[in-house]
Amino acid sequence: MKKIKPRTLSGFMELPPSEQVYFDAMAQKFKDTFKLFGFTALDTPIMEASEILLAKGGGETEKQIYELRRGNTDLALRYELTTSLAKYVALHYNDLAFPFRRYEIGKVYRGERAQRGRFREFYQADIDIVGDGGLGILNEAELPSVIFKCFAALGLSDFVIHVNNRKVLGGLFEIFGIKERAGEAMRLIDKLGKIGGGNLIKSLTDELCISNQTAEQIVGFVSYSGDPFSVMDKYMGKSGLFDTGADELRSLQTHMAAFGVPDTHYKIDLSIARGLDYYTGTVYETFLTDHPELGSICSGGRYDNLSECFSDRKMPGVGMSVGLTRLFYILQEQKLLNDSFLSAPADVLIIPMTDDLTHAIKLAENMRRAGLRVQVYGENKKFKNKVSYADKLCIPFVVFLGEDEISKEIITVKDMRSGEQTSASAGILTAGICGKIKNYSDSVIAYGQG
Amino acid sequence: MKKIKPRTLSGFMELPPSEQVYFDAMAQKFKDTFKLFGFTALDTPIMEASEILLAKGGGETEKQIYELRRGNTDLALRYELTTSLAKYVALHYNDLAFPFRRYEIGKVYRGERAQRGRFREFYQADIDIVGDGGLGILNEAELPSVIFKCFAALGLSDFVIHVNNRKVLGGLFEIFGIKERAGEAMRLIDKLGKIGGGNLIKSLTDELCISNQTAEQIVGFVSYSGDPFSVMDKYMGKSGLFDTGADELRSLQTHMAAFGVPDTHYKIDLSIARGLDYYTGTVYETFLTDHPELGSICSGGRYDNLSECFSDRKMPGVGMSVGLTRLFYILQEQKLLNDSFLSAPADVLIIPMTDDLTHAIKLAENMRRAGLRVQVYGENKKFKNKVSYADKLCIPFVVFLGEDEISKEIITVKDMRSGEQTSASAGILTAGICGKIKNYSDSVIAYGQG
Repeated sequence: MKKIKPRTLSGFMELPPSEQVYFDAMAQKFKDTFKLFGFTALDTPIMEASEILLAKGGGETEKQIYELRRGNTDLALRYELTTSLAKYVALHYNDLAFPFRRYEIGKVYRGERAQRGRFREFYQADIDIVGDGGLGILNEAELPSVIFKCFAALGLSDFVIHVNNRKVLGGLFEIFGIKERAGEAMRLIDKLGKIGGGNLIKSLTDELCISNQTAEQIVGFVSYSGDPFSVMDKYMGKSGLFDTGADELRSLQTHMAAFGVPDTHYKIDLSIARGLDYYTGTVYETFLTDHPELGSICSGGRYDNLSECFSDRKMPGVGMSVGLTRLFYILQEQKLLNDSFLSAPADVLIIPMTDDLTHAIKLAENMRRAGLRVQVYGENKKFKNKVSYADKLCIPFVVFLGEDEISKEIITVKDMRSGEQTSASAGILTAGICGKIKNYSDSVIAYGQG
Repeated sequence: MKKIKPRTLSGFMELPPSEQVYFDAMAQKFKDTFKLFGFTALDTPIMEASEILLAKGGGETEKQIYELRRGNTDLALRYELTTSLAKYVALHYNDLAFPFRRYEIGKVYRGERAQRGRFREFYQADIDIVGDGGLGILNEAELPSVIFKCFAALGLSDFVIHVNNRKVLGGLFEIFGIKERAGEAMRLIDKLGKIGGGNLIKSLTDELCISNQTAEQIVGFVSYSGDPFSVMDKYMGKSGLFDTGADELRSLQTHMAAFGVPDTHYKIDLSIARGLDYYTGTVYETFLTDHPELGSICSGGRYDNLSECFSDRKMPGVGMSVGLTRLFYILQEQKLLNDSFLSAPADVLIIPMTDDLTHAIKLAENMRRAGLRVQVYGENKKFKNKVSYADKLCIPFVVFLGEDEISKEIITVKDMRSGEQTSASAGILTAGICGKIKNYSDSVIAYGQG
């Protein structure tokens, strides 16, 4: 038979089993946290009619969409989860209760140029709350609080969620009389972290024909490092939009404190603008404290009209999105995954030392009933090979079950880390293993001091 | 803005939130059970180079594959999970420990003709155990035992796993001197359930030129309704292949009993042949007791050479596969989903009756710490609308938190099913709700008497 060289496409993450365990545990923490806040799961198709996915139109992203044709239909693979949500809400409007709170964790596809750390197939984890007609400010405080709890549950502690409100920036531009250049100004401000204050002043004056004095005032405002409310106070009462934005940021702060987010983990950062016109209120970006160069690991914001391509109804919402595949790549690269996390596929390997496997199978069943993950090694191999199988998979406990044990109604357990070997009744040793397994760390990530 | 009519492609399952909960719970039961048996999770790409997915070549399935082109590369969406496993094992051979036990639950794609109950995007849940060079019979008993436990955990009890061994049929054909027509004979026998014994005899004689007497003996054998070992005994000692198959079936029976599979839930059925030449030993099909017409809900078997397209190594294995999307569709159609399963997105809705939401948010946090899934209703709507939100989502408990409650340090809880309303300390009522939530059924399916 002709052999084909096996390969996986570049830009597609395919993990070894022991790393997949970390990835899955990470995704599970997000799910569990989303559920505690009453978010409902959606699982929308990966493939849609092209006209649906391209409804919003425009930009670089469109070029990256994987398209295919089947019969008379142009099909495409989704490149993010928001368009699928917009379609879902418009299509199933009558069956939903609003505010509609959903999460979706799923694969998306972008035909990006192949390079390290860029993925063509990757997971996004999105949460959104979508209102019918209106949506209260509480939701804008809840989302970053949920995200804080997700990261905390993962064991990640050195991160800060930066929040701002586009109404504040929009109001500021009104005050300076450059309202009609607001979108471009926001896109430039979004680059402050990369280019620095001096270059931002230059860009604002050169590209947007803003006076040097105004540009300096804008940059002074967005890069103010003291109490953000004190710099906002100077402009209060001059623009309704600005005042609303400042009030919303104040509510956000009050509510996030009630949600239990410590002020070490979020920050009102007036320079967060986000490039997209889509956002109309609160905006978010999240940075690892020691690695701002890695960019935001979770972003989002308030939008006013989720389904405008599909429906006449005004459905404002707020959403945040984590690129799980990229986050996992970063955590691996930075060696932030927790070594003490149990990544073995089983807690126990039973090695039967008799031809009759019945006792081993029954013992395994009893141990599973106690919640342990158990394999029985049933292959006809040398003893050495059986033990090295457990070693290679890092299975922490090996049970030997020979004639001697069976006749005495005991089992022999080897703790593979300490090398210690104990013989006693199956009940006692099963309970002992359960106790030791519970002591393994529950944290996927080991980063920061909490 | 021009509106696009929102739609979801036909053949793509997109569930309402309350049904998605059932689906996800079903998938979770499979995962949890697979893990108890020490299977490791894989998550292979949905997209592969076409030459990889088409390596095995051939048949109807190939026509259904979604293909696309990107730059110079022909790409395709996977149509099952086995080829991805075959590639994975060949590609990562050196990093794996054998027997390699993996599960994968993921979406696959087939451009099927659109019809009710047929899906173009659907989930498969696969478990396989792959050996390096050889693989013991224990594994062939373990897989159906795992599947039994999955279905039992779901609350499905009226089902039977039919098992057979292709060596028995192959041996029988040897004994009758029709070895070279074995593949075609198996494909005909596979249709016994649909066409009946009389027609099978006719097919065997007409299509394969087998004598009427032989055809009758074959049909008598495969449709024998008594103890299968008694009919097998008649042929023992005449073909090594037959004897091996019969011995393997006997081992299977012994091991499955040790695994705790009751003999009401599996059956040695000599007519199970499975159409594919791929299988070389034990084969499986699973039927709902009262609905054989719905076909097998979980099938699989032993194969001798998983990665023959990709590697020179002989890697025999055994696998079983459940079409989760189709299974869910059947369960819904047959109204077998469990009404007593809690499908609401939250256990508790807190309705704040004051402008200040701080108390409500903090109460929600405390309840979440107790493990409850809690939403705070923060919209500025009429009281009636707030309660009807809980009603529409079937949230079982609503908490009212007004000035009165806050000053007395109590909360008021309404049990939405009984209508009963109670006021007491948050601690006491939270514990009470936790108790009632635990009483909800854990079974996704309500079918059969166990």
